Amino acid sequence: MSESDAILFANEMFYRAFADRDVPAMESLWASSAPVCCIHPGWEGIHGREDVIESWRAILVGASAPDIACIAPRAYYYGEAGYVVCFEGVGGSYLIATNYFVKEEGRWKMVHHQAGPTRFEPGDMPPESGRSIN
Amino acid sequence: MSESDAILFANEMFYRAFADRDVPAMESLWASSAPVCCIHPGWEGIHGREDVIESWRAILVGASAPDIACIAPRAYYYGEAGYVVCFEGVGGSYLIATNYFVKEEGRWKMVHHQAGPTRFEPGDMPPESGRSIN
Repeated sequence: MSESDAILFANEMFYRAFADRDVPAMESLWASSAPVCCIHPGWEGIHGREDVIESWRAILVGASAPDIACIAPRAYYYGEAGYVVCFEGVGGSYLIATNYFVKEEGRWKMVHHQAGPTRFEPGDMPPESGRSIN
Repeated sequence: MSESDAILFANEMFYRAFADRDVPAMESLWASSAPVCCIHPGWEGIHGREDVIESWRAILVGASAPDIACIAPRAYYYGEAGYVVCFEGVGGSYLIATNYFVKEEGRWKMVHHQAGPTRFEPGDMPPESGRSIN
């Protein structure tokens, strides 16, 4: 598996945990020693693992936890770090998101997530595996 | 200068180029060999240096180029990559942004920018220099 594919796989696992409302999976996806930050749609930055995980727990166990799908992901990587840009399909509308990953003990772990509104739709843009400088 | 400070400095240069509508400075801030992506507020991802720079040129030379200020930046870094989370003050309202940097020939260069709406304000949250795993 290329590093680009490995980042896309980690990204897919994130959306699977999100869609499944799987709090333990979400916890394990986020980096445990590297510093983390998260920007939910319309929010400010949430800084630090404890608060980030707590925010996800609140979302995933909430009655209004959204059905979500990752659409048209594109991976970018730079050696020991990388990110995926993708649409998030939520109840017939779309958000645009970036998910940052770094390698922690050989595995790609999430260190940042930002999602916000977009007036665009995935359209016919094909998923691509992204580009790399390595 | 610590790496965290160097990333904050690169971030400040980005907002200075933005506020000054300085297209050449904006061009030089973005990575030239590392792949880049940019998500303007409400947009989809713009992929690739040529299109990203063109989008900035259109914004900076446009009649409606916003006055902008970076507020309460926090830097995160991970060796050869890092990012800054900050508020953007635009005409009395705020956006929330993440700016991602990688080292290119020893200098921190921008490889990704995402800005979107936030219902929060900087308030009394002090600027911090961020955390690091190094």
